[in-house]
Amino acid sequence: MKKKTTQIFSKIKPINGLNINTANIGIKSKTKDDIALITFDELANTATVLTKSKTCAPNISWLKKIRKHGKAKVLFVNSGNANAYTGKTGHENVLRIVKELATLNKCKRENILVSSTGVIGEQLPIEKITNSLPIILKKKQKNNQNWKRFAKAITTTDTFLKGCYKKIILKKREYHIIGVSKGSGMIAPNMATMLAFIFTDLKVSAFQLRKILNAAVQKSFNNITVDGDTSTNDMVSIFSVNNKNLPSVPLTSKDIKKFQKELETISIELAKKIVMDGEGAKKFIEIQVNSAKNDKQAKNIAMKIANSLLVKTAIAGEDANWGRIIMAIGNSSASINQKKISVSVGKHSIIKKGEINKNYNEEKLSKYLKGYQIIIKIELYMGNGSGTMWTCDLTKRYIEINADYRS
Amino acid sequence: MKKKTTQIFSKIKPINGLNINTANIGIKSKTKDDIALITFDELANTATVLTKSKTCAPNISWLKKIRKHGKAKVLFVNSGNANAYTGKTGHENVLRIVKELATLNKCKRENILVSSTGVIGEQLPIEKITNSLPIILKKKQKNNQNWKRFAKAITTTDTFLKGCYKKIILKKREYHIIGVSKGSGMIAPNMATMLAFIFTDLKVSAFQLRKILNAAVQKSFNNITVDGDTSTNDMVSIFSVNNKNLPSVPLTSKDIKKFQKELETISIELAKKIVMDGEGAKKFIEIQVNSAKNDKQAKNIAMKIANSLLVKTAIAGEDANWGRIIMAIGNSSASINQKKISVSVGKHSIIKKGEINKNYNEEKLSKYLKGYQIIIKIELYMGNGSGTMWTCDLTKRYIEINADYRS
Repeated sequence: MKKKTTQIFSKIKPINGLNINTANIGIKSKTKDDIALITFDELANTATVLTKSKTCAPNISWLKKIRKHGKAKVLFVNSGNANAYTGKTGHENVLRIVKELATLNKCKRENILVSSTGVIGEQLPIEKITNSLPIILKKKQKNNQNWKRFAKAITTTDTFLKGCYKKIILKKREYHIIGVSKGSGMIAPNMATMLAFIFTDLKVSAFQLRKILNAAVQKSFNNITVDGDTSTNDMVSIFSVNNKNLPSVPLTSKDIKKFQKELETISIELAKKIVMDGEGAKKFIEIQVNSAKNDKQAKNIAMKIANSLLVKTAIAGEDANWGRIIMAIGNSSASINQKKISVSVGKHSIIKKGEINKNYNEEKLSKYLKGYQIIIKIELYMGNGSGTMWTCDLTKRYIEINADYRS
Repeated sequence: MKKKTTQIFSKIKPINGLNINTANIGIKSKTKDDIALITFDELANTATVLTKSKTCAPNISWLKKIRKHGKAKVLFVNSGNANAYTGKTGHENVLRIVKELATLNKCKRENILVSSTGVIGEQLPIEKITNSLPIILKKKQKNNQNWKRFAKAITTTDTFLKGCYKKIILKKREYHIIGVSKGSGMIAPNMATMLAFIFTDLKVSAFQLRKILNAAVQKSFNNITVDGDTSTNDMVSIFSVNNKNLPSVPLTSKDIKKFQKELETISIELAKKIVMDGEGAKKFIEIQVNSAKNDKQAKNIAMKIANSLLVKTAIAGEDANWGRIIMAIGNSSASINQKKISVSVGKHSIIKKGEINKNYNEEKLSKYLKGYQIIIKIELYMGNGSGTMWTCDLTKRYIEINADYRS
């Protein structure tokens, strides 16, 4: 599995009908772009999944309000400041950005999506932002599509840029799906848990996008955790660009299924990249729980293992201390029969139905743990439920990043 | 608040009617005592609270079975090996210890309590243990009460010994309560979360002990967390020593209340000591959530803050990054009104009813964060519920202890 995939951006074919503009206005960094604008020539169909945080940021409240309309003219993203827990002023600032962009683009306010990421509890430099918007938009050129710049502009503590690109053939025509995500800390699945934006030139209705995106998020972004902490600002949005030059052909349910499958693949890839970039992470961990009573139970147990500091530090230390996996299973709220559990790590079977496998060889497992990708498989022999979680190990670097710097 | 309190042990007055024996038999360490036996001259009344882990160890299953009898002749504790997830052999080994001790002490099996702590998934050196028991017990002397040796024998990764001692005057007579606990990692509240043993010469029935202990655990051991991981072997036991020389006077409900209050104080002190000894901990954190809808909601939110890696690393870094507290509140399952939240840290009010306090001074808060004890207070203005959690910061040393060594 490749971690750094910046080269993906050079392969992306531009999608007609949208423009990208980015700029540095000094929100936090003085050099890195911190504002990104995606402007659609025509209103795009759109759907968004939002954080379930009870202390969600004002931009999330705004998106909740406009979500039902399903039409986008502009996507505004700023990094370096989450505009979260900023009280009345925070809400007013979102509205000021929305009003300014609606005026500049001659559209309704409900067509302006606002996304913010960065530090919590500080006010946005709102004058700087609203003053810069007309200047940034003036630079707009037709099909100005530097996806790498967009991916860079939305990052905070990320150590690499996260993009994905797929072609899809439908009705003998080539369509495209482009996905960009950011995130590396404050990652825990509770709906969306970071920022991710997905664009396609396939014409899909907002209603269908909503259904498809919800399903894809369940199988991807909701299966990742870095630190069990859920952000105030997470969102995943999808946009179906309304390109007048492309024919509007009705999609069959078979077409939609094909699109859905590709979207799932992209979502999973974007989600995995976030975990690979988990703060301080040196290893990628996949946890599969099978033959559980039901999917919910499987997910619950997979999440307990994925969030266990003792499991994550053991893997960081490449220590075959499998007892900690057993401890984490026992820590779940799900009722299980511990005499039935089987555990294997990689190809190494450790526990078979509650007893240590006689052929278990700690030396071999220790060797496997020196690798980058660690797969933990649990069988519960209780039913047909299954669930997967992706996470990373917990290293001293995570503590350094989060204790020594303000993020 | 004093962290190291070894001197407490020298102040303990012996409780007549029980003997302590400890020994090193080389379970893990070759020097530190790893077996502790407390033998009661007459059957003691006893009550125990056990871990809720779904993968609990065989000794926990044994204690669940005998719990209803409420009488103890011997308490056996070994450190260095948890005898957890050891299959059939693990259960057989508990029975072998029980049988041997019942024979040696001429008592019923149901009067033998077994407690184990240490690594998960390894078989006990059972021959070594059963062979050593007669030798250890032969050394038994009347009122051999070295509580410091007992406290030391039950430790694993602990960095200091945890004891508590209280005198209580009832019916013009002096009685005593002695408490000893161990624990520093795999600490998360789900009933008991470590080992703690409490002894008193006040004659209390097993039925009353059960009620009083359950109440005390709710207010103490269930309010601590180090890493959110629940152990397979946790237990808290209380013993009322049956000393023939003391008169058996019936206790009034006022007497019981007085005893209960003292027991609560001891339990809270023992619980706090475990958190202070949290692996790698440099700071002690208290989280108080008030005016919640109910106690459950308050506890839920306090626990989310106490288990948030981002909050714990910020405090380790002495960083006044209060946004992470807001994030953790939002991450709880409880429904709240974020416009009403007030947050203060120490005496420093940061948020007042959803808005940043105009007098908030980050410099002053940063100074406070350099101290050892950090108190976080949340007000929700929703009702009368309240809850407290005690935890510690998360430092690089936690990762070192758990990634670099097998525990």
